Amino acid sequence: MAWDILILNCKGLVQVREEISLPLKGAALGKLPIFNNAYLAIADGKFAAYGTMDDLPENYQATTTIDASNRFVFPSFVDSHTHLVFAASREEEFVMKIKGATYEQIAASGGGILNSAKKLQQTSEEELFERSLKRAHEIIKSGTGAVEIKSGYGLTTKDELKMLRVAKRIGKETALTVRTTFLGAHAVPKDMEKEDYIEQILQEMIPAVAGEKLADYIDVFCEQGFFTADETERIVERGKHFGLKPRIHANQLHRSGGVQVGIKTKALSVDHLENIGDEEIELLMESTVMPTALPGAAFFLGLPFPPARKMIDAGLPIAIASDYNPGSAPSGNMSLMTALACIKMKMTPEEAINAATLNTACALELEQTHGSITLGKVANVFITKPMPSVAFLPYAFGSDLIDMVILNGSIIN
Amino acid sequence: MAWDILILNCKGLVQVREEISLPLKGAALGKLPIFNNAYLAIADGKFAAYGTMDDLPENYQATTTIDASNRFVFPSFVDSHTHLVFAASREEEFVMKIKGATYEQIAASGGGILNSAKKLQQTSEEELFERSLKRAHEIIKSGTGAVEIKSGYGLTTKDELKMLRVAKRIGKETALTVRTTFLGAHAVPKDMEKEDYIEQILQEMIPAVAGEKLADYIDVFCEQGFFTADETERIVERGKHFGLKPRIHANQLHRSGGVQVGIKTKALSVDHLENIGDEEIELLMESTVMPTALPGAAFFLGLPFPPARKMIDAGLPIAIASDYNPGSAPSGNMSLMTALACIKMKMTPEEAINAATLNTACALELEQTHGSITLGKVANVFITKPMPSVAFLPYAFGSDLIDMVILNGSIIN
Repeated sequence: MAWDILILNCKGLVQVREEISLPLKGAALGKLPIFNNAYLAIADGKFAAYGTMDDLPENYQATTTIDASNRFVFPSFVDSHTHLVFAASREEEFVMKIKGATYEQIAASGGGILNSAKKLQQTSEEELFERSLKRAHEIIKSGTGAVEIKSGYGLTTKDELKMLRVAKRIGKETALTVRTTFLGAHAVPKDMEKEDYIEQILQEMIPAVAGEKLADYIDVFCEQGFFTADETERIVERGKHFGLKPRIHANQLHRSGGVQVGIKTKALSVDHLENIGDEEIELLMESTVMPTALPGAAFFLGLPFPPARKMIDAGLPIAIASDYNPGSAPSGNMSLMTALACIKMKMTPEEAINAATLNTACALELEQTHGSITLGKVANVFITKPMPSVAFLPYAFGSDLIDMVILNGSIIN
Repeated sequence: MAWDILILNCKGLVQVREEISLPLKGAALGKLPIFNNAYLAIADGKFAAYGTMDDLPENYQATTTIDASNRFVFPSFVDSHTHLVFAASREEEFVMKIKGATYEQIAASGGGILNSAKKLQQTSEEELFERSLKRAHEIIKSGTGAVEIKSGYGLTTKDELKMLRVAKRIGKETALTVRTTFLGAHAVPKDMEKEDYIEQILQEMIPAVAGEKLADYIDVFCEQGFFTADETERIVERGKHFGLKPRIHANQLHRSGGVQVGIKTKALSVDHLENIGDEEIELLMESTVMPTALPGAAFFLGLPFPPARKMIDAGLPIAIASDYNPGSAPSGNMSLMTALACIKMKMTPEEAINAATLNTACALELEQTHGSITLGKVANVFITKPMPSVAFLPYAFGSDLIDMVILNGSIIN
């Protein structure tokens, strides 16, 4: 019993599980195991032991001890959908929208995804890394331990590869566990026909991304005005051929058939779902695809929220991710995402926390190593400030309640 | 030129004004003066000098210099409506509401304002101070420099006085400028007839509060099921007789006549306004009452937001406050309130920042000393983290962008 870190007197260890049936769905999503008055020991970057304070061995040795009186210890959030590699924020479009500009007007003035693409193309890889690194540090401080990062602001082979290299490097140079997704089919470049661009994705980009082993997954923005369900299917099938598993941007603005193509292509997740009906819910019930809500985007854009309550009550699982991106969801704060899930989607705090930890871990195939306090899993936790209950985290929606972050068994300063 | 603090290389000093026509209303609300590439000097707790870096005197002396490269300096927020003195959070009611409990069911299970009253009555003055002090420190860190604090969870003479003493003490023992408001008419105690309680407010509470000089203002929750417009008028007129100026909780859940009684009694502000129509807007146009939106409450309760855009376009002023309280608005984060104002009420960043600084200062009669960077005003500012523009503050709604707080000319640690 020589431990690196020992957390003592913890008011509650959240999400302590040794046996888990995943994904968490229906009624099981509402159950969040909490271990009260506990200690938690970390060794070699992994969870090594936990128990009640009464059961703390007398002869323990620990390099660092932390008193967590009145505090909770949560497993770090797993954020399964972000675009955090980008060149510049887009608050000028936010102001245009407030003043009543339409999507078309913003696009005509050089806004939207093509705005981000232009800026990213003009930014060197090193500079892009530096800017993205700041965002990575920010999400670490706000409690995220593992994150998916998409390409999709490059829109040329060279720039898509650049984005993915930057995303991979964030995984190497920070304590974050990073999964990368190739999203060449995010928008059609200004000067190209869509069919030509799809051919470029199929023949040039996907082989290049796979050849350099830059992505784990492939994604398509399946949406009116972007890529149809048929085009989505062609693109992700080509990705699968090169070893990239699919995940789909589905049903954000319209009932685009995105859910159906996600199920058909055995995607890991279908993300957004602001516009789904009973038909999509029934189809999801028969699939293993993780339905993923991105409440930050629905909030920021003023869209309807996904019918999470209906989905859970039907027995589905649900995951919650941030969609952190400069256009439609400029926040990677997962605590706030769980608050939005509770306030706007009527999920209980237990459901929201499960959705943002274990279910997002499932969506990123990280459920064996992340998303819960389980012996042997990667020691990724955050310790809260003193607070009365787990529900206080989403309730106090404007408070920064994270006091300390430990990733891979090391305290982050 | 011997200064205490000198802030150098500031990307932008926000809300720099020497001549101000207040309140800011209509088109003027959309204009936010910003002084670029600037220095700001503080001496004896006041703003002593500012200018462009080119104009910085060569022979200056400063005890402390701060480099604000790439950063903005904002005047501290003035939060003109809070209930931050309370005994305990109420996240259990939040969860009940998520699960579908009605207001009546929550009240029947001991929830609501009466829940807060019961807990407060059972809490000693010292303990109440300690708990409230933590919230005061939290709002200081989130950029607030002056705050209004209401009573209204006491509901007995003894406990109302206790709350107001605690609120006053927060003003003495922290760097916050505090204004206090007597809100005995917040709810009717469980075991009393409303008419008897009103008599107690009129005959016992108001004279006692005024006698101990514990409040600057008097407020009434004018709302169906609470106090009618006629009762509100009786109560605030009695308060005025004892030197307490009125401010009214008006039109949160219904068109309660609260705006009309606020205008009739020459209230400083009418707050909430989720339920107002053209009639109220026209009446406000002819008055000097400050219409105050509390977007945190509308957000948290899922209420419609006040028609801010319509009000501003009609030429009205508007103020933005937090309503920080344990039941309906558990956040005092004014940056987030400006974000909600932009995202949900379609106010521009300039309008939201004006509404949360100078207009709230007007609502608290602090416009001569607070709410802007003006020579001779109290040196209350916050310095942001590096950011590209003023609009970035409400746009990056989930980010903590405040790096340093200076209140009364002293750096807060």
